[in-house]
Amino acid sequence: RCFHFCKLPGRVMGIRLLRFTSVVIIVLLLVAGALTALLPTIKDDKLPNSRREPKTQSQSALDSFTLIMQTYNRTDLLLKLLNHYQAIPHLHKVIVVWNNIGEKTPEEMWNSLGPHPVPVVFKVQTINRMRNRLQNFPDVETKAVLMMDDDTLVSAHDLAFAFSVWQQFPEHIVGFVPRKHISTPSGVYSYGSFELQNPGFGNGDQYSMVLIGAAFFHSGYLEDFQRQPEAVYALIDETQNCDDIAMNFLVAKHTGKPSGVFVKPVDIRNLEKDTNSGYSGMWHRAEHLLQRSYCVNKLVNIYDGMPLKYSNIMISQFGFPNYANHKNKM
Amino acid sequence: RCFHFCKLPGRVMGIRLLRFTSVVIIVLLLVAGALTALLPTIKDDKLPNSRREPKTQSQSALDSFTLIMQTYNRTDLLLKLLNHYQAIPHLHKVIVVWNNIGEKTPEEMWNSLGPHPVPVVFKVQTINRMRNRLQNFPDVETKAVLMMDDDTLVSAHDLAFAFSVWQQFPEHIVGFVPRKHISTPSGVYSYGSFELQNPGFGNGDQYSMVLIGAAFFHSGYLEDFQRQPEAVYALIDETQNCDDIAMNFLVAKHTGKPSGVFVKPVDIRNLEKDTNSGYSGMWHRAEHLLQRSYCVNKLVNIYDGMPLKYSNIMISQFGFPNYANHKNKM
Repeated sequence: RCFHFCKLPGRVMGIRLLRFTSVVIIVLLLVAGALTALLPTIKDDKLPNSRREPKTQSQSALDSFTLIMQTYNRTDLLLKLLNHYQAIPHLHKVIVVWNNIGEKTPEEMWNSLGPHPVPVVFKVQTINRMRNRLQNFPDVETKAVLMMDDDTLVSAHDLAFAFSVWQQFPEHIVGFVPRKHISTPSGVYSYGSFELQNPGFGNGDQYSMVLIGAAFFHSGYLEDFQRQPEAVYALIDETQNCDDIAMNFLVAKHTGKPSGVFVKPVDIRNLEKDTNSGYSGMWHRAEHLLQRSYCVNKLVNIYDGMPLKYSNIMISQFGFPNYANHKNKM
Repeated sequence: RCFHFCKLPGRVMGIRLLRFTSVVIIVLLLVAGALTALLPTIKDDKLPNSRREPKTQSQSALDSFTLIMQTYNRTDLLLKLLNHYQAIPHLHKVIVVWNNIGEKTPEEMWNSLGPHPVPVVFKVQTINRMRNRLQNFPDVETKAVLMMDDDTLVSAHDLAFAFSVWQQFPEHIVGFVPRKHISTPSGVYSYGSFELQNPGFGNGDQYSMVLIGAAFFHSGYLEDFQRQPEAVYALIDETQNCDDIAMNFLVAKHTGKPSGVFVKPVDIRNLEKDTNSGYSGMWHRAEHLLQRSYCVNKLVNIYDGMPLKYSNIMISQFGFPNYANHKNKM
């Protein structure tokens, strides 16, 4: 009989078998777990998005946007707008371009009133330039940029809808303020809005620009903007104007199509009158519109041609705010 | 001195020189003429289209469309509508799908009242089927089809604009009548319009179909429609309904995107009440809407999944009819 020695191999075999079986079971469980995680979610209809996920830095670069807001001499409006815009759906980060040279940013006060839904970065500038907001900020992590003037209030509904439209037209400037140029028999261009005559292509009016002071566009265009002819920067600095017209030229040239897609806003407001600073914005200068016509002609010179194209597409949100805003009296 | 002989060579030389010079001049003129003809027309802005060119068969296949209108028991409405539609800009040809089995078409009367702006072809049918209008008619020479019900009047302005929109979205059904499906916890789908609850993706409503009774779509889809499962034809024949829902399934499956783009009509009218025939259209049947819900579920079965996708894009024409229909109270 073989007690000690014989049992030992058996027990050893037994232990080895036990260990082996345990390892096999664990591996099988891990594999099963991995397979479950890889199962495709059923996505034939888009899943309802009724519950808001907490905003984190890990929001996909495609599903969120960066707000860039340049500010000069209207910090009260800036802070009022920041309270509104910091809570817009799909916002990833806010970049405040601080054109108040030599003045402290409100960063301390901002932090003391935290926490905030998203990070806000104050970019202190050294010269008060209109085109500061068009720098290629490394802070931008998203594909989309929302650019807003520091006196413009657009509702969250409008912004959420316009962002979804931008996602369908990512190479265009998708925004709320359409403008146009017209050509005249002399070959000189003029800049304006609905008050100018129609360009004459069938019924109705046309627009050839969407202003970037209330619009979404691809962050790649900020990079492109750094590679423009020097004369473009000189023009914008000379007029402290027209950076938006230049951007529309850039985009139109790049796409060969109309630069912008106009989304009709339900609720857009100008808060200029509400500021305590008394400062009321560049567009009140007497020469503002004449400058912009001047810029159009200069840019045609610089770019050796007129790249802007006309569009008459106006986009609204189906069934909002009125659930039957498309109904017809048939 | 050398009179006769010496002059002769000179004169001969002179004649040769004259001939040579003439030939050179003629060649130069021909070359100049050819160069002028080859000069590129300046096309940085689209040229105004204010003067209508006479409609010819040579209109580019991309710049014109074919109207397909199926008709049953409403010849008075048909003829009224033909007078209107025959003059729509960019129309290439009209195809009338004649579902009045055994009855003579009004072709003789039509010809006696000529000339007409475009050719009108009467396609006599042998069975009165709803899906007759979705045959792949060889008469269609254009990329675009405009399909209209024989009781629907849409203004020329709306049609011209919607055609221009289709040219920007050629793979979609671009039309004036949006509808949707909704899914329910039981997994059974329901068909309807604004009266149904929103599918729940953010604010406002969504549509997932654009009906083909007043819409532009690519003529290639008529070809695709011939290659659908037999069960689709059986369903349409069984209900004498739902051909348009089937077409939306087809397009959504093909593109992986929402099948339709909704253009909000300014002036769309239903002329049913104006007919002398007393016939008032299939949609008045009690079971019409229930049938359409039934069709949605059957088609999901046939296609083994729900391909329809939601959209909330509503397109209107900028600055028409009101030249400032986009103006905001800023």
